[in-house]
Amino acid sequence: MVISDIVIIGSGNTAVNLAVAFRKIGRNISCVFSRDAVKAGKLAEKVGAECITDIAALPRTAGLYILAVSDDAIEDVVMSLPRVSGIVAHTSGSVEMSVFEKKVAAYGVFYPLMHLSAHKIIEFSGIPLCIEANNQENLEALQGLASALSNEVHIVSSEQRKILHLSAVFACNFTNLNYFIAEEILKKHHLPFSMLRPLILETAGKIKNDSPSKLQTGPAVRKDLKVIKEHIRLLENFPEYRKIYNLFTDLIFKKKNSHEL
Amino acid sequence: MVISDIVIIGSGNTAVNLAVAFRKIGRNISCVFSRDAVKAGKLAEKVGAECITDIAALPRTAGLYILAVSDDAIEDVVMSLPRVSGIVAHTSGSVEMSVFEKKVAAYGVFYPLMHLSAHKIIEFSGIPLCIEANNQENLEALQGLASALSNEVHIVSSEQRKILHLSAVFACNFTNLNYFIAEEILKKHHLPFSMLRPLILETAGKIKNDSPSKLQTGPAVRKDLKVIKEHIRLLENFPEYRKIYNLFTDLIFKKKNSHEL
Repeated sequence: MVISDIVIIGSGNTAVNLAVAFRKIGRNISCVFSRDAVKAGKLAEKVGAECITDIAALPRTAGLYILAVSDDAIEDVVMSLPRVSGIVAHTSGSVEMSVFEKKVAAYGVFYPLMHLSAHKIIEFSGIPLCIEANNQENLEALQGLASALSNEVHIVSSEQRKILHLSAVFACNFTNLNYFIAEEILKKHHLPFSMLRPLILETAGKIKNDSPSKLQTGPAVRKDLKVIKEHIRLLENFPEYRKIYNLFTDLIFKKKNSHEL
Repeated sequence: MVISDIVIIGSGNTAVNLAVAFRKIGRNISCVFSRDAVKAGKLAEKVGAECITDIAALPRTAGLYILAVSDDAIEDVVMSLPRVSGIVAHTSGSVEMSVFEKKVAAYGVFYPLMHLSAHKIIEFSGIPLCIEANNQENLEALQGLASALSNEVHIVSSEQRKILHLSAVFACNFTNLNYFIAEEILKKHHLPFSMLRPLILETAGKIKNDSPSKLQTGPAVRKDLKVIKEHIRLLENFPEYRKIYNLFTDLIFKKKNSHEL
């Protein structure tokens, strides 16, 4: 089954990016529903769709209903859905697909593994799209649509999707906190964070071609105890950062000793 | 004073990159010294320099002696230097400039804030070069040379240089460990690390235009306790990663509460 007619539920970052992307590949967005009438109207206009603010008025026969609302709202929206004939798919990294099972006949997940912002419409071509569905037919329908958007389509279970989300917390959210810590330390010594930018971009760029297990650098992996001792001294006014420094340094020692790094 | 004639001491990653860069901007590399005769010979040939393996044979009147050896070796090499008339500058992020003071008349530091590899000759134009010298005349000489290589020349004290190095440990070395942890977790669940690459590159790319304090995303900054609890459960077989998860999550809570994030 080819999905040609899509309803968008939600008007936030994911809703906007997916609606625009679906339009671009020639799919019809028949309707946008959101409780936020202003945002719904704006998105509907952008993609040439009807705009509704009463969920009971949803068209019943679209091929796909994209549920792009916040994690906390998914269950409530599912419960308030009228009976529809198409596939209903949410776009969350952490909500299990089983959220649909009591209420919906055909369902799945359509999760783009990327930070999306309504202010910056992205190109999905290289973005991993993680899909899951309640049966093979629905899976193939979602797969067909996803493949038209991206060459990185992955069939991923609810448990695996949570693991992806968890690993992104380490690789991206905690990494941003590392950047923040670096900026804080620099600020206290009147140094601009911009000085670190080339090295940060290089560090991220290197994982395009190699495993991070082969790319570890720094005093810990060299077991440069003199530098480490000095760094711990320099962190005397940052007790939390010192704790992180010690934890990471010990972990690098351990992984180096077991030849994992 | 314009530095036109340079001696390179060392034949490793930094030595190779700086020697090639100096040649490119028309400086003469008169001599390469290294205890590793093979690597010294190779580098000397590459940059059209004489190669020596006895430090006593160093030319005495070059404008600059770049001491690009490992941190641990700097002091020994300084002690074995013959008396020379030019500036002697090391290239380390963590060794204080005072390492020279007992032995050398004109000295300084020429520290590129970038990971360098002999296998990949880089372009220095956007790379921060941190310089320091024992007097204004020598500082200006180093500044002139550095400015010919890069538009990011910074005068940085020994203490500030250590701070830069420490902040790079957080922003780059620990970040790579975050990537490693993500890869480990994914591997255990038969998911390829490559799926995270677009998001990792996006996370790093965003700091080009903004402060990390404005870019924090993820369950911790949203105080999404349901997702956090689930992540902690998923980490039950990774006690060390769970410790890091808790530490970072608590720190994000705290920084969010104090409006630093």
